Amino acid sequence: MSQRTLQLVVQYDGEAFAGWQRQPSQRTVQGALEHALSRLMQVHVPAIGAGRTDAGVHALGQSVSVTVPLKWDPSSLRRALNGVLPRDIRCAAAHEMTSEFHARYSAAARQYRYLVGTDESAASPFRYNREWALCRTPSYTLLASEAAAVVGEHGFRGFAVKGTAPDTDDHCSTVLRCEWEVRPGGLALVVSASRFLHHMVRFLVGTMVEVGLGRREPGTVRALLSANDNRGVSPPAPACGLYLERVVYPAHLYLAASPSVAA
Amino acid sequence: MSQRTLQLVVQYDGEAFAGWQRQPSQRTVQGALEHALSRLMQVHVPAIGAGRTDAGVHALGQSVSVTVPLKWDPSSLRRALNGVLPRDIRCAAAHEMTSEFHARYSAAARQYRYLVGTDESAASPFRYNREWALCRTPSYTLLASEAAAVVGEHGFRGFAVKGTAPDTDDHCSTVLRCEWEVRPGGLALVVSASRFLHHMVRFLVGTMVEVGLGRREPGTVRALLSANDNRGVSPPAPACGLYLERVVYPAHLYLAASPSVAA
Repeated sequence: MSQRTLQLVVQYDGEAFAGWQRQPSQRTVQGALEHALSRLMQVHVPAIGAGRTDAGVHALGQSVSVTVPLKWDPSSLRRALNGVLPRDIRCAAAHEMTSEFHARYSAAARQYRYLVGTDESAASPFRYNREWALCRTPSYTLLASEAAAVVGEHGFRGFAVKGTAPDTDDHCSTVLRCEWEVRPGGLALVVSASRFLHHMVRFLVGTMVEVGLGRREPGTVRALLSANDNRGVSPPAPACGLYLERVVYPAHLYLAASPSVAA
Repeated sequence: MSQRTLQLVVQYDGEAFAGWQRQPSQRTVQGALEHALSRLMQVHVPAIGAGRTDAGVHALGQSVSVTVPLKWDPSSLRRALNGVLPRDIRCAAAHEMTSEFHARYSAAARQYRYLVGTDESAASPFRYNREWALCRTPSYTLLASEAAAVVGEHGFRGFAVKGTAPDTDDHCSTVLRCEWEVRPGGLALVVSASRFLHHMVRFLVGTMVEVGLGRREPGTVRALLSANDNRGVSPPAPACGLYLERVVYPAHLYLAASPSVAA
């Protein structure tokens, strides 16, 4: 083998990017990452991401697969990348993988985190574009009860942009975890699932927050899941609150012991 | 009286500003604030800041005095300002003051906070330009012992840019508090003093951190204070870790009860 397959765990502040996916004459994360890889390798290196995050969406642990010459071991590539990447992207970790590893198709689960700022200072310049500055406190009990309805296998047509899965008409996903956490200054929704449809987390948050603020009936999330139709969904929560937190793969794809930060 | 004197408590992310002080053809905090005030008042309104923060330095509670027509009460001015200010400045509070109030000359003490990131992820895109990404952990015991030497009345010529106080040759300041705090991901130095010379906090942090990392002898801060000469000082810590946290005034200058956020 003259090449290695690596997983890059990548963090980015989505504010100044037109999303993950490479697009002509737009600043994108994939574009910037491939540009950095090309500078190091002197040849175009495709970077495949596990999640195609939208404009303004952040990543704490986007997972990227790349195939590189043998001389690049994980830690030397990580260091070299951080020397040439712009300051709003950073490679937090790199791992050697079996050649069958594909960041997107090999993923067993993805986890997103959505930050809602509930206190007055959520509008501070230091929190701008990094969370949803709601500046009000929805009922935690109502939020928790809506979130519990999401866990399990469901059709998520009710919480997806129309035409998300046009080929298959399959809107099924298995949600492993869906929980609101209290954090300083606000709340966070943590959702882990086998699959995410387009805007799914943002639609879930938008609807749950309306229930939590008393603007919609308790049980709305369950009703929309049963209806499996997005006509009744609330507007999606803003992109700036959403973080791709981590992507989970089967352990056998890691050549070294799979470290907890990446798995 | 046809005018009111107000105190504005202002927060800003210093990253995109050439400091506080108005300068021709530079983006400054004072310039942006006076521009916003002028849009509201239709006339130029000078904004006097308690601390003239340098380029890249942030504020959690800069204090600003303005004189405005009677029709602008504190809360309506605060709301109106936040409607026209750029998103990296925010008026967090506004208070009515006696006419003798002057943000700079009336100040009894100022408090700065300096953030040092000690863990590996201090270099993350979300912490960039908001703290010093040291990514190493200085000894807390050594830091604490250097900081303790700073409390009290001293000449700070050893920790000031040359020529800071050229007219008076007075480098005296009374430090009320100088303490390192442990925070998630790192450390913070909190310094409260009657007066700060140019780069004083950054010189103190730069020197203390070198002691904490074992590169300089314990007792260096005390020795530099005694020498009262800045030839032996370490390079100043980066501007991006520094926050003007709050400014304290005598209670009698507040027309309403002085709220804890501002005092």
